[in-house]
Amino acid sequence: MSQPQKLYEGKAKILYPTEDPEILLSVYKDDATAFNAQKRGQIVGKGEMNCAIAAHLFKFLESQGIRTHFIDCPTSNQMRVKRVTILPVEVVVRNIAAGSLCQQTGLELGKVLPKPLVEFYYKKDELGDPLLTRDRLLLLELATPDQLNQLEQLALQVNQSLTAFFQSCGITLVDFKLEFGIDANQQLLLADEISPDTCRLWNQAETDPQQRVMDKDRFRRDLGQVEQAYQQVLERVLAQDSKK
Amino acid sequence: MSQPQKLYEGKAKILYPTEDPEILLSVYKDDATAFNAQKRGQIVGKGEMNCAIAAHLFKFLESQGIRTHFIDCPTSNQMRVKRVTILPVEVVVRNIAAGSLCQQTGLELGKVLPKPLVEFYYKKDELGDPLLTRDRLLLLELATPDQLNQLEQLALQVNQSLTAFFQSCGITLVDFKLEFGIDANQQLLLADEISPDTCRLWNQAETDPQQRVMDKDRFRRDLGQVEQAYQQVLERVLAQDSKK
Repeated sequence: MSQPQKLYEGKAKILYPTEDPEILLSVYKDDATAFNAQKRGQIVGKGEMNCAIAAHLFKFLESQGIRTHFIDCPTSNQMRVKRVTILPVEVVVRNIAAGSLCQQTGLELGKVLPKPLVEFYYKKDELGDPLLTRDRLLLLELATPDQLNQLEQLALQVNQSLTAFFQSCGITLVDFKLEFGIDANQQLLLADEISPDTCRLWNQAETDPQQRVMDKDRFRRDLGQVEQAYQQVLERVLAQDSKK
Repeated sequence: MSQPQKLYEGKAKILYPTEDPEILLSVYKDDATAFNAQKRGQIVGKGEMNCAIAAHLFKFLESQGIRTHFIDCPTSNQMRVKRVTILPVEVVVRNIAAGSLCQQTGLELGKVLPKPLVEFYYKKDELGDPLLTRDRLLLLELATPDQLNQLEQLALQVNQSLTAFFQSCGITLVDFKLEFGIDANQQLLLADEISPDTCRLWNQAETDPQQRVMDKDRFRRDLGQVEQAYQQVLERVLAQDSKK
């Protein structure tokens, strides 16, 4: 198909309009960025792998009663999604301390949190996607108080479902980032993607803190074997039924 | 008096023990630091000025029913204070957007907030005193949930009292940082200091965004006339009755 003008190009995906104004085409790229795009590279095959992983996980979450923007995949790196207005908030759920949580609090990498921590970050590259308190999020009017509560509840639900799913893959879900959009009916839908780009995933068969990493931290931290790790996640995810 | 071994030296004060184990001597210094001590200097007379300002404001707040660590000033740059265990949390109250709030959210300097914003920062130099969400504060066990609620209520009470006090001085209280300690009876006391080092204060007689600054931002931002600004604050504060 001849692709029309792109609507939006992000770091990992390009969005195109389709003939249906309520449907967009999301094309997954091999491009990888880290540290607010200060580090750039390519992960060969990432577009197709993440598209397949995200599609499977969206189907799984739909089967668990969570509404998502996913429709279907016309090709291996393309996903048709419902058109939504993305909230400029990244919702992060953490089960185990890692990444910026460790850097900003001094908590030790790998510390299991007593309960899942839901955090909000301002999706704004020029500010470096800073951590938001709930008060700051509301002050900036990035969501209404009601939406904020819904975001937190949805994030915890997704966490519960995904943790169980990855557990059955022999993978520990350390933390992950979600984005949500508002559809024409003012309903919140889970949007963006769920993949090794947006989750920290640790192989339960490995105890070595570097060997166990199956996610974008391999790229961020130059651990090597990036494509192989993504491929492993893909294989294990696809081996699980998406409709549990 | 011959001073004994110091207990603790901070950036702006030194704490000494006294003969009474429940009382400490806080000696205010002229040293000034900014940007997590990356910038260092001296503000001539600051020790005496801040000691006098803080003493007056502590007396005023006590008259308003807020319990503080203040006892009295044996000399012009020395304050006797009740011994407390300082919570490793900086409580910041903001009435107008300035400083890191602007940098981290993109809010415009000078924007009047719809209601006072109470924020918590981790008092930890090696981490750069990062912003804490309430969840992170509780996760790090820096305070109990009950203490956290008390801190917020106390901070709002202090803000209401100080805003009115500075208003009568012709000064706008933009934002300020408080520290609290726990005494032997597990009661929270307002501690540390309240001064142009810890408050943003704008002269209501000036409209120019640089001219109006009467606080440590003159030092941080190299605006000059630092000592004169502190002196102005001192004179206006002392001209107000501390027992309203």
